[in-house]
Amino acid sequence: MGIRAAVAGASGYAGGELLRLLAGHPEFEVVAATAHSQAGQRLDAVHPQLTGLDVTLGATTPEVLAEADLVFLALPHGESAALAAHLPAGVRIVDLGADHRLVDADAWARYYGGPHAGTWTYGLPELPGQRERIAAADRVANTGCYAATITLALAPLIAAGAARPDDVVVVAASGTSGAGRAAKAHLLASEVMGDLSPYKVGAHQHVPEIKQATGVTGLSFTPVLAPMPRGILATVTALPTGEVDPRTVLAQAYADAPFVHLLPEGRWPHTAATLGGNSCHLQATVDVDSGRLIVVAALDNLGKGAAGQAVQNANLMFGLPETTGLSVWGTAP
Amino acid sequence: MGIRAAVAGASGYAGGELLRLLAGHPEFEVVAATAHSQAGQRLDAVHPQLTGLDVTLGATTPEVLAEADLVFLALPHGESAALAAHLPAGVRIVDLGADHRLVDADAWARYYGGPHAGTWTYGLPELPGQRERIAAADRVANTGCYAATITLALAPLIAAGAARPDDVVVVAASGTSGAGRAAKAHLLASEVMGDLSPYKVGAHQHVPEIKQATGVTGLSFTPVLAPMPRGILATVTALPTGEVDPRTVLAQAYADAPFVHLLPEGRWPHTAATLGGNSCHLQATVDVDSGRLIVVAALDNLGKGAAGQAVQNANLMFGLPETTGLSVWGTAP
Amino acid sequence: MGIRAAVAGASGYAGGELLRLLAGHPEFEVVAATAHSQAGQRLDAVHPQLTGLDVTLGATTPEVLAEADLVFLALPHGESAALAAHLPAGVRIVDLGADHRLVDADAWARYYGGPHAGTWTYGLPELPGQRERIAAADRVANTGCYAATITLALAPLIAAGAARPDDVVVVAASGTSGAGRAAKAHLLASEVMGDLSPYKVGAHQHVPEIKQATGVTGLSFTPVLAPMPRGILATVTALPTGEVDPRTVLAQAYADAPFVHLLPEGRWPHTAATLGGNSCHLQATVDVDSGRLIVVAALDNLGKGAAGQAVQNANLMFGLPETTGLSVWGTAP
Amino acid sequence: MGIRAAVAGASGYAGGELLRLLAGHPEFEVVAATAHSQAGQRLDAVHPQLTGLDVTLGATTPEVLAEADLVFLALPHGESAALAAHLPAGVRIVDLGADHRLVDADAWARYYGGPHAGTWTYGLPELPGQRERIAAADRVANTGCYAATITLALAPLIAAGAARPDDVVVVAASGTSGAGRAAKAHLLASEVMGDLSPYKVGAHQHVPEIKQATGVTGLSFTPVLAPMPRGILATVTALPTGEVDPRTVLAQAYADAPFVHLLPEGRWPHTAATLGGNSCHLQATVDVDSGRLIVVAALDNLGKGAAGQAVQNANLMFGLPETTGLSVWGTAP
Repeated sequence: MGIRAAVAGASGYAGGELLRLLAGHPEFEVVAATAHSQAGQRLDAVHPQLTGLDVTLGATTPEVLAEADLVFLALPHGESAALAAHLPAGVRIVDLGADHRLVDADAWARYYGGPHAGTWTYGLPELPGQRERIAAADRVANTGCYAATITLALAPLIAAGAARPDDVVVVAASGTSGAGRAAKAHLLASEVMGDLSPYKVGAHQHVPEIKQATGVTGLSFTPVLAPMPRGILATVTALPTGEVDPRTVLAQAYADAPFVHLLPEGRWPHTAATLGGNSCHLQATVDVDSGRLIVVAALDNLGKGAAGQAVQNANLMFGLPETTGLSVWGTAP
Repeated sequence: MGIRAAVAGASGYAGGELLRLLAGHPEFEVVAATAHSQAGQRLDAVHPQLTGLDVTLGATTPEVLAEADLVFLALPHGESAALAAHLPAGVRIVDLGADHRLVDADAWARYYGGPHAGTWTYGLPELPGQRERIAAADRVANTGCYAATITLALAPLIAAGAARPDDVVVVAASGTSGAGRAAKAHLLASEVMGDLSPYKVGAHQHVPEIKQATGVTGLSFTPVLAPMPRGILATVTALPTGEVDPRTVLAQAYADAPFVHLLPEGRWPHTAATLGGNSCHLQATVDVDSGRLIVVAALDNLGKGAAGQAVQNANLMFGLPETTGLSVWGTAP
Repeated sequence: MGIRAAVAGASGYAGGELLRLLAGHPEFEVVAATAHSQAGQRLDAVHPQLTGLDVTLGATTPEVLAEADLVFLALPHGESAALAAHLPAGVRIVDLGADHRLVDADAWARYYGGPHAGTWTYGLPELPGQRERIAAADRVANTGCYAATITLALAPLIAAGAARPDDVVVVAASGTSGAGRAAKAHLLASEVMGDLSPYKVGAHQHVPEIKQATGVTGLSFTPVLAPMPRGILATVTALPTGEVDPRTVLAQAYADAPFVHLLPEGRWPHTAATLGGNSCHLQATVDVDSGRLIVVAALDNLGKGAAGQAVQNANLMFGLPETTGLSVWGTAP
Repeated sequence: MGIRAAVAGASGYAGGELLRLLAGHPEFEVVAATAHSQAGQRLDAVHPQLTGLDVTLGATTPEVLAEADLVFLALPHGESAALAAHLPAGVRIVDLGADHRLVDADAWARYYGGPHAGTWTYGLPELPGQRERIAAADRVANTGCYAATITLALAPLIAAGAARPDDVVVVAASGTSGAGRAAKAHLLASEVMGDLSPYKVGAHQHVPEIKQATGVTGLSFTPVLAPMPRGILATVTALPTGEVDPRTVLAQAYADAPFVHLLPEGRWPHTAATLGGNSCHLQATVDVDSGRLIVVAALDNLGKGAAGQAVQNANLMFGLPETTGLSVWGTAP
């Protein structure tokens, strides 16, 4: 018998993707998938793409989850902390929510409200030294999807001193699954298809996470909702500190990262090329007119931005090869 | 070393999906991927979703392909026969094109034109006895995507005498990848998004294949182009021969088929639920007003409708478990 | 001052399209736009496409509506009758709901439930003699969007004795706006984009309206939800009574209809070509294999299928040219 | 008889939209619609949304066009100048191509290549004093679609000294019709649906036009292709010069502009809300973290970004009310 895994919040989009990945994972075995209002239903009534998987949704209680060696929490922000507090120390946890990402309790209070639950090991293995920290951790705070995309694009350039941290401008567009599965009128297909619209402009709750993970000190971040189910495309610009080839810095940073791909010169990322996989595609250049560094990153917000990332972290936590049960390749067209 | 596999026509959509599946297949190893005009290019320049796969496209010649134990031909209709004739007898071939599907040479001449290349074992393992025939074959003609969908919906009902074969009406809609990757103005995104339109109405070249595979004698088939990259949804109606429960017939026919799923009563197929996997989802009822049997089938035209089906057939030809390297589950949302 | 018009149900999709059309209409002047929960809001907060129109939503009460010469009821099915009963006889009404469409009270009870509110003049001007009946009416029941599409495709062939009424098979796909604006999880963009799925298969509440309007006696009707905001494409097949050229019958039936266009031979309808206009595009042929007549019709479900049709009816009721304030042309791409 | 209008380049997307607008225009009458390879075809064979308009495409020659009082040139960049040189002085011309937009011949040579054709009156009526210049002009260079969007967002802030011109960052996404109608593989629906991708990053030919029209001196501009047929969403950020309320500046600048709408505070632009109309929607704020000004603008790239803008300019050139034949409202959903 393999490592026993449980998914809390199995009825949402990240939960569904987790269960898809776990169904094909050679070492993790799903022993519980839980939900709130849908508890008692068959999994495939909620996720028709998982038809053929014989699972019934359970209730999200510490008792059910404590059966597992590994628990994934895919709950709305603010609900992970209370649940995690009731799980035994021996259970390893990956939290896909925001509760345990921030180091700065003030930033938490300002952007999310309520008491700060504490800080867990940040689940982005591609940051320097982070792979080892995750491997040693029992509790890991998975990245936010925007933060993962922008950090992969920018962190090496800041760390190398190639980009100035004080005037970074990011515009990033996300597919609709990033907004979750709750029935909201502005997320109806009739509203979204054929439409682009920004949201939470000027004050987005992901700003402190992005700054913490990248080292940026001045950040303008504008998110946009795009008419597609999945995918994030982040356009990141920063002022260079001197004569810099951003491609050299990025190539070096990700030389050993199996899921981060600096594309050959001239090819720019497509979100569609990352669908269903765990890869992030990057490209960079220096703008001829303004001299700004432009880095563009694409990934699947439910893959490398959420569920795939979580499995990658769990692999490390259990001493498995990082890529176990994950695909480098996307499904396209 | 595994079974050496080659893909001819690697630059098209079915070719790309084949290479994605083969990259994750534990037994088949890609030794050649060939194309015409793109020969010499890196694979990921043509298929960015396969970034990370270190393959260079070769030229489509018998010499290159003869290196393999297993050759997939994903070529335009009419090009497989000439190439196959030059491959050694020991090489097993799965032809994704139409050249070797039809038994009736007249029907070939009428719908496709040119000389009939002959008839290979029909590659739909779910037909009675067909799994065994495919396992014994060196040459297999993979199904067309529409024919696979409609045959899975209808063949058991005709075979069981539950549906009359002489007045079958099918309307089936396909995503755009079914129309191939050639640059044609009517397939531009600007034309297709937000649009539904029928095509080849009244005389479609897939009619003889569908009739041959299902046993239908009178067929009205109308295909529709739908604004999505992948997926086929076929609505199949037929007159019942008496009091029939179509669900019972279908449940029995596919009891042992790992990839064909009769959904629980009341749930109807969604194409999105089959994306990237090799499953076909079915549902059936009797229309209260007309008394007609209505069967709806959904699958991924590049998966169970093309590349996934081809891998399933190849698995059988090499004595592997039918499901090797294939996913029952789709990627959604 | 022009003819005073009011719209009840202004916050829905049909209501929004009505207000767009009325804003450009030279004779009708909007004096009230009402809604339930959104009463008190600015119109453009609910319909951002109408930014620049200075209207505040009122409450849906008989007092507010009775100020108008012409009232459009764009309410959920079952809510029109009670409201209409309280409006003065002199106010002309077009009901976009289903309440007053059916002649057969039993069919109403069976498919909708509740008491039958009575039968108003059926609002499809292109039926023989109907233009005159609408012109003479004070109360008009606008067509359903599916019924309009299918009736325009089929009624002339049944009336002319060219098509048998007893074995008609229709598969029709609609864009999501046909499902309304209520926040439902299965209508989320994440669920619908990339997806085709049938619904209410085997027993749809529009069947009695379609049979009544077309003269069909045996009807199999399967509706499909398509990943686009607007548009209906209906594929209608029927058995011919003899040697029939369906194009001749249709050409004759619509020779004087400004909004119904039989396309030149060989060109098939595209829903995108009808977006925003009041036209229905038709094409027909005889299937070479089955001998069935195939007629395909496309229209904008919010245009000729709802709001445009309602304005066309209102034009007739007030003695205006049928085309006043309506566009024959669609907005594409 | 009205003012005689001709459209050269009628087979493209901008040409089709022009013909749709002209068909509903009360003063302009289309006397010629010309194309290259499609000359001789019926207009509705090329633009099915214009079915019902009885026009046959002519050849694009000076003789055909000289019959008109007003000529719209909707030709590929580089083709307008040669044609315009052969049209009589009395014919008024609106050029939708780039040939006559730039003042700086060097910039033309650097970004487009070839000799500079000269500079015509810039066709953006909302710039200070420009309405009058256009009214007095015989030759007008219509704006590019990106330039129109970005200039409407930014020019008043630069002109008022509220935004610094030397560090402006723009990320703008466009629907596919902006890329034209030529059959190119990367614009196929299969490639674009579900995908976001940047293009021409770091050196886009629209940069000099944007700088000229806005007064910006340092511009980083990254365009993105979005999976929708129409619409541009531009996210424009600039450093403020002091304590600035960008809404006040914009409200003042567009107080009398019928087509530019600063949305009520808190509502952000949606491209879908502008579809088919001639409006531009704006919103602005100051980013709480970085202090940057963020202005977001949305418009229909074929409407206010091309054909609608051209009609607005032509209205002014002929002394008609600016809004004649144009819609303030969009078609949504």
